Amino acid sequence: MPHKLMRIERAGAQQTATRRPIMLAIAGDSAAGKTILTKGIVQALGPERITSFCVDDYHRYDREERKNLPFTALHPDCNYVEVLEQHLQLLSAGRPILKPVYDHNTGQLVRPELVEPRDFVIAEGLLPLHTKLARACFDISVYLNPPEQIRRQWKINRDTAKRGYAETQVLAELARREAESEEFIRPQRSHADIVVRFAPAPGRDDPPGTPLSAELLLRSTIRHPNLNKVLGEGPHGAIHLRLGRDEDSRPVDSLHIHGYGPREESQVVENAIWSQLGVGVGDPPQTLGVLDSGERSEPLAITQLLLLYHLLDSMS
Amino acid sequence: MPHKLMRIERAGAQQTATRRPIMLAIAGDSAAGKTILTKGIVQALGPERITSFCVDDYHRYDREERKNLPFTALHPDCNYVEVLEQHLQLLSAGRPILKPVYDHNTGQLVRPELVEPRDFVIAEGLLPLHTKLARACFDISVYLNPPEQIRRQWKINRDTAKRGYAETQVLAELARREAESEEFIRPQRSHADIVVRFAPAPGRDDPPGTPLSAELLLRSTIRHPNLNKVLGEGPHGAIHLRLGRDEDSRPVDSLHIHGYGPREESQVVENAIWSQLGVGVGDPPQTLGVLDSGERSEPLAITQLLLLYHLLDSMS
Repeated sequence: MPHKLMRIERAGAQQTATRRPIMLAIAGDSAAGKTILTKGIVQALGPERITSFCVDDYHRYDREERKNLPFTALHPDCNYVEVLEQHLQLLSAGRPILKPVYDHNTGQLVRPELVEPRDFVIAEGLLPLHTKLARACFDISVYLNPPEQIRRQWKINRDTAKRGYAETQVLAELARREAESEEFIRPQRSHADIVVRFAPAPGRDDPPGTPLSAELLLRSTIRHPNLNKVLGEGPHGAIHLRLGRDEDSRPVDSLHIHGYGPREESQVVENAIWSQLGVGVGDPPQTLGVLDSGERSEPLAITQLLLLYHLLDSMS
Repeated sequence: MPHKLMRIERAGAQQTATRRPIMLAIAGDSAAGKTILTKGIVQALGPERITSFCVDDYHRYDREERKNLPFTALHPDCNYVEVLEQHLQLLSAGRPILKPVYDHNTGQLVRPELVEPRDFVIAEGLLPLHTKLARACFDISVYLNPPEQIRRQWKINRDTAKRGYAETQVLAELARREAESEEFIRPQRSHADIVVRFAPAPGRDDPPGTPLSAELLLRSTIRHPNLNKVLGEGPHGAIHLRLGRDEDSRPVDSLHIHGYGPREESQVVENAIWSQLGVGVGDPPQTLGVLDSGERSEPLAITQLLLLYHLLDSMS
């Protein structure tokens, strides 16, 4: 029916042309740190320039219905994957979507809400990088990959403090989800432009309260700022860049930022990243790196700044 | 960013090719008879071949929120018009949508539901023909245009019997809506392929219980079955075709089906419509024309059959 399609295209073309936003995916398992990473970026750019949403809102079943199902919320069959793909395409074309809403407190699917794209859109959650079409909608993609032991502790802390579960319930849920984490969540790691691992610095005995270190795998699927000049020479401090090979044996850089490092050393790297955006961008935002506790983490700050760099760099 | 767009197109092209459904719009004011007209068509084709939904589900505000607004549910600003356009385009391309749901009993916006297109999709409601892009998505469009006096009585009957309102409340609501009916609902009449008017036959004194007559304006925007052969000659019975001029003075046919007419006369016309679908389509469905009361209306049956004709004819 070419006639009908042409009618739709003609009618659609009369809508106002919209600018395409820059799309960032932040994927990772439950309690991997997606919210805190997202929050700092949204605060730095401000709600008039960036919007973020959670792809877990695309749950097909509510908590009650899931009790009778042979899979958990991590399974693609438990999510409207095709509708998510559709909405990512629409947002990426600058169109608004009517996004479903999953209420984590009640476990119910409730009234949907309008999401209108800004200059930047962050889609964070369990499965943003699961399908090829979803991946194609993103300009930048991140996978959060903390050691399982740390993620488990984060999940226990959060779900007991904020979601009203007992520790035994959280442990049972983690066990129930393990096979699907392995089958559906972790494979997304290989599709990300940047893999972020927050973990204690190995072989050190830092005092309690020392922020976790970060290791950032910087794949060549996007063009990263050149940090070799500022980090490649001289004695290694708390931040260094290491040339290595990725799982598929391709060359890859990894950026190590140790949590014990001084603020001054981070600032050198932050300025080096920021200055590569070109003249006239001002100083790097100073509000990054804030943890849930209110304390500051240099590894988190640099990770967020690197993502900010990519968002702003993709606009040009 | 042509690179990104190409990525999305390539990734999208790998999805299974889907057949485009035939789309029918049934527009009209509150209680104009949209549901009853839709119901008979859906029953005749069966839920595996046709799906229908109400575009009033795209309300932007719930009943409570609307109390503080300067317009009623009829106003385009009270509806997610752009999301409706988007969803009509998706359905018309054979893709599923996650449709919002407005609960008429509670007046609340609740959990959305997946609508997957079948061979045929009916979108009925207040504003399906309001915008150019929405109109472009339909293969066939109908506007229900009963005399206001009759629609008011229908609305009073329904809203007091099924929605728990008092008659005075319904009358107040009708008064409150009148300006927006005039500004937004009635102009859709001029965009429909078929305008249907159920009303008493003028100048007659039929016994109580006689079904209303129907007048169907058949615009040349789609190709109607040729009824001139069976209706154009000889003395006029209870069904006749009248050549006239539309509001814009273009030539138009109107088909009059009087409620007092015998079943035998309707059958001649039904067979004439049906036979023009070509060989091998069998007899016309016998389940059409059933009113809310369970009684049969020949004018309703022929109206539904004509729409069935257009749905099936559009497939070929």
